Amino acid sequence: MNLTGILIVQLGTPDEPTGPALRRYLKQFLSDPRLIEIPKLIWWPLLNLIILNTRPKQSAKKYARVWDEKTGSPLMHYTQMQTKLLQEKFPGMPVEFGMQIGNPALLETIKKMVAQGIEKIIVFPMYPQYSATTTASAMDCLGQALMKIRRVPAIRFIPPYYQHPAYIKALATIIREQEAKLTWKPDHHLISFHGIPISYCQRGDVYATHVKRTTLSLVK
Amino acid sequence: MNLTGILIVQLGTPDEPTGPALRRYLKQFLSDPRLIEIPKLIWWPLLNLIILNTRPKQSAKKYARVWDEKTGSPLMHYTQMQTKLLQEKFPGMPVEFGMQIGNPALLETIKKMVAQGIEKIIVFPMYPQYSATTTASAMDCLGQALMKIRRVPAIRFIPPYYQHPAYIKALATIIREQEAKLTWKPDHHLISFHGIPISYCQRGDVYATHVKRTTLSLVK
Repeated sequence: MNLTGILIVQLGTPDEPTGPALRRYLKQFLSDPRLIEIPKLIWWPLLNLIILNTRPKQSAKKYARVWDEKTGSPLMHYTQMQTKLLQEKFPGMPVEFGMQIGNPALLETIKKMVAQGIEKIIVFPMYPQYSATTTASAMDCLGQALMKIRRVPAIRFIPPYYQHPAYIKALATIIREQEAKLTWKPDHHLISFHGIPISYCQRGDVYATHVKRTTLSLVK
Repeated sequence: MNLTGILIVQLGTPDEPTGPALRRYLKQFLSDPRLIEIPKLIWWPLLNLIILNTRPKQSAKKYARVWDEKTGSPLMHYTQMQTKLLQEKFPGMPVEFGMQIGNPALLETIKKMVAQGIEKIIVFPMYPQYSATTTASAMDCLGQALMKIRRVPAIRFIPPYYQHPAYIKALATIIREQEAKLTWKPDHHLISFHGIPISYCQRGDVYATHVKRTTLSLVK
């Protein structure tokens, strides 16, 4: 048997919209050197003495606003749905998801897959555009998890898919579905992406280029 | 452009068969927790106070015996030849090699490939049979190298090929070539593999199983 599995990698979500849960989440999130490129010596006291004593409470309130009464964390809910739907498309391949931050941790998911006898894993990061802050961070997290496993599966990491026809088609479909619900016709489409610091781009992060290419493909 | 490259990963070799070069090599080699599963607290003093003060000189003498006057380190020589021959088979894909220990370090090779615009790397470890001490160690080394790179290429790690027809055929060809040079016919073939501690197998290393499967395929 030489079983292949699919592993969806997502950023992660706080366990609940409370101060203590947000503190755990933010501590892990903001300790990632891919995300915060400030030297540890400066960043550590800033993070631990100031930010983690003020931000968790504020953030918890914001998370509470998007938290669903029944389904909880939106990111968790949609990731579970994505996993389920992808599993239906690949009945012969176990599909699992793991989080870079919080639960279920990437390491735990990989351990589970290895225990099932999976020897090859297709790693599917939920970042269509490459950025060191997301894609490379996911790869770091994966590498660290694999260092703790005796029987390391063969890994295939899916490259950035910022211009993949299926991705562009999915975006276009969502836009058209939303438009169909309008009683008026929009003059313009304003597309917004998550930002990263300009200095990261200047140091060589290709995120902005990938975002432009996604936009160009979508406009076509 | 979405260039794919092939990266051969080999264990590595001392730079020269001398005490100081062997000390550098053995220090890196024997500090790998995949190789030596003794707790750091016990192993560190053993390694640094005893082993690294006695072994390098002895090992240097043994390496000197296999060192070639013209081509130097056999492992380096054959790895360079393998890279060159593989490059001829894949003219459109840059083929490079990197060492887990010593030079050229995996990190330096990957940096070179990324600088060439390579966005996807097929990683080809020179270990047909899986062992945590070799394959997983190569994966660790790769993971650590990628953590130092801003534009991490998409990685595809070639799974263990202990029973791959091309590998078995290559082994059979070598055996037949050697037999053809004999003036007598051998009664038996004695096949020898590198060993690992039994305790590693007991803890779940699949190396012995892969070795048996290679042998079975070869006998057929």
